[in-house]
Amino acid sequence: MIGILPGVYKAYNSDVTVHVQKSVTEVSPGDFHALVIPGGRSPANLREDKAVVEFVKKFFETGKPTAAICHGPQVLVTAGVIGKRTLTGFPEIEGELTAAGGTFKDVEVLVDGNLVTSRIPGDLPAFSRAVEKLLLR
Amino acid sequence: MIGILPGVYKAYNSDVTVHVQKSVTEVSPGDFHALVIPGGRSPANLREDKAVVEFVKKFFETGKPTAAICHGPQVLVTAGVIGKRTLTGFPEIEGELTAAGGTFKDVEVLVDGNLVTSRIPGDLPAFSRAVEKLLLR
Repeated sequence: MIGILPGVYKAYNSDVTVHVQKSVTEVSPGDFHALVIPGGRSPANLREDKAVVEFVKKFFETGKPTAAICHGPQVLVTAGVIGKRTLTGFPEIEGELTAAGGTFKDVEVLVDGNLVTSRIPGDLPAFSRAVEKLLLR
Repeated sequence: MIGILPGVYKAYNSDVTVHVQKSVTEVSPGDFHALVIPGGRSPANLREDKAVVEFVKKFFETGKPTAAICHGPQVLVTAGVIGKRTLTGFPEIEGELTAAGGTFKDVEVLVDGNLVTSRIPGDLPAFSRAVEKLLLR
């Protein structure tokens, strides 16, 4: 997992911990086959980090699978890559996705080109299957 | 002051308290001469409240002075009112303001029609003067 700073992070609402092995400044889009941006409260911070936004923009432009769930699409908005895509996300971010030019649909998963998006934790099975399908393409 | 729920709120980074007298559901745009959306962490929550977003949209459409500082313009993005306006805001939200169609400028205050925006707490004097000027128009 990559992030702003390497370290072990605890989820704000559970005891789950995640290990961020590398800073986004140490990697390049060529190092990965896909990018998955999870939700929660982190996208509000990730979207304000210049290196993260630049990495996401560059990664997206490679055409490789880019996936975001819950508040994750907020980072895609700031990266300026929504364009005219059809996508979904946490219901409360519909307004900003639409303002960014996207078409919002309230469904468990949407695949539009290399972009995979889902709304909520309950969508994770469909979300994961869609990412896997793009990787096996 | 209006907000999601009436009550006394303490700032997250100081001992300043603010009194929210009424919920946004109890008021209408006709009750006010101007709308000022402050920054900090509240816009991330305000923009996810349907009643707030609806109120901001309706207020903005009256053409009365609407002002936002720091992260405040995020609420305007979700309300879908940025359009082709020239505006400013907290530097880290530039990407989403641009994605929403706006033209971002890094200056202490911008007035575009009924919209007044500023970047940071240090811009407050210029911000306040600009709002006052629109009110005296």
